[in-house]
Amino acid sequence: MKFGGTSVANVERIRNVGAHVKREIDAGNEVAVVVSAMAGATNQLVAWTREAGAIHDAREYDAIVASGEQVTSGLLAIVLQGMGVPSRSFQGWQIPLRTDETHGSARIESIEGGSLTALMSEGLVPVIAGFQGVAPDGRIATLGRGGSDTSAVAVAAAIGADRCDIYTDVDGVYTTDPRIVPKAQRMERIAFEEMLEMASLGAKVLQVRSVEMAMVHKVRLFVRSSFDAPDAPQVGPNGLPPGTLICDEDEIVEKQVVTGIAYSKDEAQITLRRVKDKPGVAAAVFGPLADAAINVDMIVQTVSDDGSTTDITFTLPSGDLAKASQILESRKGAGLDFEALSSTDDVCKVSVVGIGMRSHAGVAAKAFEALAQKGVNIRAITTSEIKISVLIDAAYAELAVRTLHSLYGLDKA
Amino acid sequence: MKFGGTSVANVERIRNVGAHVKREIDAGNEVAVVVSAMAGATNQLVAWTREAGAIHDAREYDAIVASGEQVTSGLLAIVLQGMGVPSRSFQGWQIPLRTDETHGSARIESIEGGSLTALMSEGLVPVIAGFQGVAPDGRIATLGRGGSDTSAVAVAAAIGADRCDIYTDVDGVYTTDPRIVPKAQRMERIAFEEMLEMASLGAKVLQVRSVEMAMVHKVRLFVRSSFDAPDAPQVGPNGLPPGTLICDEDEIVEKQVVTGIAYSKDEAQITLRRVKDKPGVAAAVFGPLADAAINVDMIVQTVSDDGSTTDITFTLPSGDLAKASQILESRKGAGLDFEALSSTDDVCKVSVVGIGMRSHAGVAAKAFEALAQKGVNIRAITTSEIKISVLIDAAYAELAVRTLHSLYGLDKA
Repeated sequence: MKFGGTSVANVERIRNVGAHVKREIDAGNEVAVVVSAMAGATNQLVAWTREAGAIHDAREYDAIVASGEQVTSGLLAIVLQGMGVPSRSFQGWQIPLRTDETHGSARIESIEGGSLTALMSEGLVPVIAGFQGVAPDGRIATLGRGGSDTSAVAVAAAIGADRCDIYTDVDGVYTTDPRIVPKAQRMERIAFEEMLEMASLGAKVLQVRSVEMAMVHKVRLFVRSSFDAPDAPQVGPNGLPPGTLICDEDEIVEKQVVTGIAYSKDEAQITLRRVKDKPGVAAAVFGPLADAAINVDMIVQTVSDDGSTTDITFTLPSGDLAKASQILESRKGAGLDFEALSSTDDVCKVSVVGIGMRSHAGVAAKAFEALAQKGVNIRAITTSEIKISVLIDAAYAELAVRTLHSLYGLDKA
Repeated sequence: MKFGGTSVANVERIRNVGAHVKREIDAGNEVAVVVSAMAGATNQLVAWTREAGAIHDAREYDAIVASGEQVTSGLLAIVLQGMGVPSRSFQGWQIPLRTDETHGSARIESIEGGSLTALMSEGLVPVIAGFQGVAPDGRIATLGRGGSDTSAVAVAAAIGADRCDIYTDVDGVYTTDPRIVPKAQRMERIAFEEMLEMASLGAKVLQVRSVEMAMVHKVRLFVRSSFDAPDAPQVGPNGLPPGTLICDEDEIVEKQVVTGIAYSKDEAQITLRRVKDKPGVAAAVFGPLADAAINVDMIVQTVSDDGSTTDITFTLPSGDLAKASQILESRKGAGLDFEALSSTDDVCKVSVVGIGMRSHAGVAAKAFEALAQKGVNIRAITTSEIKISVLIDAAYAELAVRTLHSLYGLDKA
């Protein structure tokens, strides 16, 4: 059971979390809990760190920021003890949960699950401070923002959990953003691969890394709301309360062609005009951007009539636009020949996601036609086995999402 | 160098602390730093802990509350790095600073000073989270409120420091409380034994345990204000800036008969009337109180004319008065025969402290005479080699302190 920041925002909310845990224990389950910092705590700690030094030692950042989860783990252990549920807190270094040495955004390397399962079989609930572990240098390492989800999945894998329940401030994963499409439906189930596409495109319910890790280790994730009454009936149509199960696609009996519509407004587009087309030109453009850790997404290349020049268009996170433009301009004439660079961050990426696409043709064509009918101009297209993404003008984002959501029959009855 | 809570209350104050540390490094000193939590942080953490459970697991209390110093240690390390001073934070478990298993008020058992001195000789400043260590169970243990002073003295002893500088919100130890006697003077030097008597009687500048530990390990303490300008001249009459050196009495050349006047208002008095006087009566009264961890201080016993009964009067912390009265009443007739119990917490203890008393007679008589002249009624008296304490009505506390302060020539010129 993993509880996010809003679920543990104060001691009263932590008591509510305790009631959720006690319910599971009373039902005969063995439970380990992973907690985030109290909502707002991490932001305060990060703000102090930045005030102490604009450029700062990531190892010190980790020591400071990890204290937030440390507090919550102790408070929940006390609350559980008060409810008659034996419990103790665990910090990352106590388990130990070992990470690599990338302080500030470390990756988990191993977890000693044995000490946890031994305690759990005695009826004790370990409450684990999320988001952190211990690096090879013996110092605290954090997993990067949102890393408590990743902690939870890693712990679930290490102890061989049947399921990893993510309690958050929403009651599941929706077919699209309900703020844009009020008719969006909560999905009962979604495959890991689909969730990855949804999450990386802005669904924001779960950290992408946690879904990747769940897929690799086959940890079933269940997203549900911590605002549910702890004593509400726990048996819904899934054999589970309201929420979304993220699982292997084998568990999804009735596969839909399209599962959901995702979008991301945090996109920018760069076009290089009349790039001299010669072997290695792609490397000359994208190599320096990769070196600067700029994540390029959609790439479209068109060749001129005579084949001597090419136009290259690609997308990137809007926050990286200025840096990328500067890098490319600085290379102009110095290994990279092009006539002009144009860019915009007034674009949006809309994606249609579904594992059923693999066995259904014509999904993409249907989307393009529907968007054309609404007058939505498509700037670029990329596709994968289970996803079609289109880049459009930002002004049309909501229209496109609503159009596609209806088109594939996702609107609630 | 140890910095208390008000000295690190926010990042700006921590920057000021950094400037104090840098000054010492620039002067060619090797320095280790111990920090408290930011002022208010510990109170917030304790409040949450109490809200989570009125009765709570001390191990969880420790995990929660120790996070305050963890934050400060990281912030100061970042600030020092920004000033060009290589630095890193240390948590108790990283040094390790080992304690016994008394969570919540643990005692230090050992410190591995070697890792610290090795780094210090390379020019690095370790910034140690005060107030905490790691217990034999592998969990965080705190040293009790004010324990950062004790941490600092223990670290100073472990690394063989020349001096342990305690930066606090006052600029030294005074001959008495300046709020009562404006003419109180800052002492340049005070012996460990004197400071112990002063501290335990309410001087409150330093935790008593830290002074005991400093005396045992012969760690010279220097109390000074963190509000001094870091770049002010550092050479005063002691070869030190303004402050008070707490040291072995051998270092004090000109020993004064009386060094200071301490007082404590947190006192209560219990009298048992007509206690049947027989062997073992003292044990029958004080044994049960000791079992309940009630610290009895002044004891006065008077015997009746015929020697068959006795009146026993003693003092104790006022917070323990109700519990002590209840314990004694419950024993009445059951192993303890007395006629009546009377008590008051409207009393105050005033003490005259000075190592010079050892070689000077008549110090006490002079005090009793001066108090009598002012109409101050003395309820009880206890004396030690270097201290005379009198218990008086609380209403006369200020009068008695001022009278004795003048009597022994402690008023500033």
